[in-house]
Amino acid sequence: MPSSEELERNSDRRHREIREAAIGIFLDNGYEGATMEDIAVRAGVSKQTVYKHFTDKQSLFADIILSTTGDMSALVGLIAASLGDTRDLENDLEHLAKAFLVALMQPRVLRLRRLVISCADRFPEIATAWYEQGFEKVLGALATAFRALADRDLLVVDDPGAAAEHFVGMLFWIPVNKAMFTGDDDFAATHDLAPAANSAVRVFLDGYGFRRNKSQNGGQD
Amino acid sequence: MPSSEELERNSDRRHREIREAAIGIFLDNGYEGATMEDIAVRAGVSKQTVYKHFTDKQSLFADIILSTTGDMSALVGLIAASLGDTRDLENDLEHLAKAFLVALMQPRVLRLRRLVISCADRFPEIATAWYEQGFEKVLGALATAFRALADRDLLVVDDPGAAAEHFVGMLFWIPVNKAMFTGDDDFAATHDLAPAANSAVRVFLDGYGFRRNKSQNGGQD
Repeated sequence: MPSSEELERNSDRRHREIREAAIGIFLDNGYEGATMEDIAVRAGVSKQTVYKHFTDKQSLFADIILSTTGDMSALVGLIAASLGDTRDLENDLEHLAKAFLVALMQPRVLRLRRLVISCADRFPEIATAWYEQGFEKVLGALATAFRALADRDLLVVDDPGAAAEHFVGMLFWIPVNKAMFTGDDDFAATHDLAPAANSAVRVFLDGYGFRRNKSQNGGQD
Repeated sequence: MPSSEELERNSDRRHREIREAAIGIFLDNGYEGATMEDIAVRAGVSKQTVYKHFTDKQSLFADIILSTTGDMSALVGLIAASLGDTRDLENDLEHLAKAFLVALMQPRVLRLRRLVISCADRFPEIATAWYEQGFEKVLGALATAFRALADRDLLVVDDPGAAAEHFVGMLFWIPVNKAMFTGDDDFAATHDLAPAANSAVRVFLDGYGFRRNKSQNGGQD
């Protein structure tokens, strides 16, 4: 007979499996097209089991959307690790920018993004929570890092929040839109992201008063 | 008896009315939820009349989505008018930036954007055409303007296309995402867009070597 710990482990595992199946089904079929039946089949469990773990389709949807904001925590950690005590800001910021692009331009992240946007009309509270718990946490971490760089006199930053917005805006607006509108979700695998990352970093650093070296700073100092 | 010109005028008018009704129905109900019946009712015509003007739902959808890219022509004209022979680049670019934000943050534009994104999986060719005929025309016009400003030694621009991307990225990434994810499509009416416009312009100009005046350029020249 299985012990109560084993039963609990099994239940946790099944919970994760249902979630994973649900993400796949919602991404493939959209919210409208997804059924609890399909999710049960993909997870290899009965429909009753799905309902035992999740009350209904909407709460399962909310659960899986919000579970993906955890992916952003890795980026938040990366910001602190890259910029915390940097000795070569330009180089470290280029690496960070490229890592950001690679992370957000993954097919699954792009498809999830499209799914959340397409449901924002109907479930504004889910999409808003996703934005706040994912997106805005990354912005907050970037703002903190830029403030610290200003304290070290490496950048001139009046408004660290605006600086964070400008940084991600220059990085993401074009590639994310291209992917959103062309449906090309394999962007990261088919494009070299380094030139765009480096070009955004250069403009960001010049725009925020970074003094690379005298000959590069307008050539007139 | 109506003349053939009158008949043609009536047919043109009806075509426009069906289109307008279709935009409303697609925005309200999404592609899946929209029916030719609903569109006919909203346009005040019979279903047969709708089918006489548009073969089927998909071609009506393609027609109305692509018809909205004409809205971008106004922005393209504005770019040339604002920057063509500017005597005060900072001021003119601030006005342009604010006009861009106001134009793109209208409820109808935002809802249309959400609709196109949500259909990009299913109709990549329609969404791609929308992106290319709208978005990329504006980027092209901006790139041309920035190249001309570099020729006048007002900016230092190696890659005008990248400069255009950075300019719109800093302007739009945050407000458009906020609207996309929170469902707050009334953004332009409820927010003062000038501070964000001005702040993006400042960083853009500094990032692209604009020499405002010596005391503002890092304070050390």
